[in-house]
Amino acid sequence: MSSEMFMRLAVKKALDGVRKGQAPFGACVVKDGKVISCEHNAVWKMKDCTAHAEIVALRKACEKLGTIDLSGCEVYSTCEPCPMCFSACHWAKISRICYGTRIEDAKRFGFNELQISNEQMKGQANSKMEIEAGFMRDECMEVFKEWQKRQGLSY
Amino acid sequence: MSSEMFMRLAVKKALDGVRKGQAPFGACVVKDGKVISCEHNAVWKMKDCTAHAEIVALRKACEKLGTIDLSGCEVYSTCEPCPMCFSACHWAKISRICYGTRIEDAKRFGFNELQISNEQMKGQANSKMEIEAGFMRDECMEVFKEWQKRQGLSY
Repeated sequence: MSSEMFMRLAVKKALDGVRKGQAPFGACVVKDGKVISCEHNAVWKMKDCTAHAEIVALRKACEKLGTIDLSGCEVYSTCEPCPMCFSACHWAKISRICYGTRIEDAKRFGFNELQISNEQMKGQANSKMEIEAGFMRDECMEVFKEWQKRQGLSY
Repeated sequence: MSSEMFMRLAVKKALDGVRKGQAPFGACVVKDGKVISCEHNAVWKMKDCTAHAEIVALRKACEKLGTIDLSGCEVYSTCEPCPMCFSACHWAKISRICYGTRIEDAKRFGFNELQISNEQMKGQANSKMEIEAGFMRDECMEVFKEWQKRQGLSY
């Protein structure tokens, strides 16, 4: 499977979430070219303020692989991970984060807290995380647009 | 109950965790002078890389109070929350974080990743979180010492 396919799965999962009333974010954990977990944000569904897409996907990956060490795994996320999720990726020893939209894009749609970019986090934490930004941004943006439509909001 | 009692509970829980082979961190969520949850780090026990003491305590508090909005709650943590936990507190709308030892203290005991202080996170994220640092630091330090003893390590 290709990077495009992984991101497309994350987008599909995020759209599933939006249709179920969840926040518009999706993430896949991938290892050796295989999807280990793919989840959408489940904060409202699980009534858990930590249940961002990346966190839920990391937890599931730990469970599936039976380890807290996700070295060699990559995270594909429809949006730039927030500082909580970036830090969680770091603790899990994720090697690479690939994301579509940026925290600033999320802000335009009303998700406007914790404006610390992954590059800032990486620099300050002296992390070796590989980061690919803006990957398939247009497709990832569709998730926000779908969410916005369902909110009946206009910007 | 007083702040001292809340922190003492967090220390006791952290020591419980250490005796069960878990990492040396504990945290309480408190609302209106009552303990809502008190947990130790459970990363190894739960095989969940995100199961830091604060995260587990926040999740439990959300579950117990039936909401993702922990406005008005305080977090007492034996050690300065890492950036993941600080961000989780922010998402949960925690009003105040009170902690004992600092991230640098944790570093001395081998927990040396993600050196971004709560003050740095707060400043950059433009957060209104109230932070009390160094509260009952000596008692909180005992948790690290107990952990160190059990590792058979010397520094």
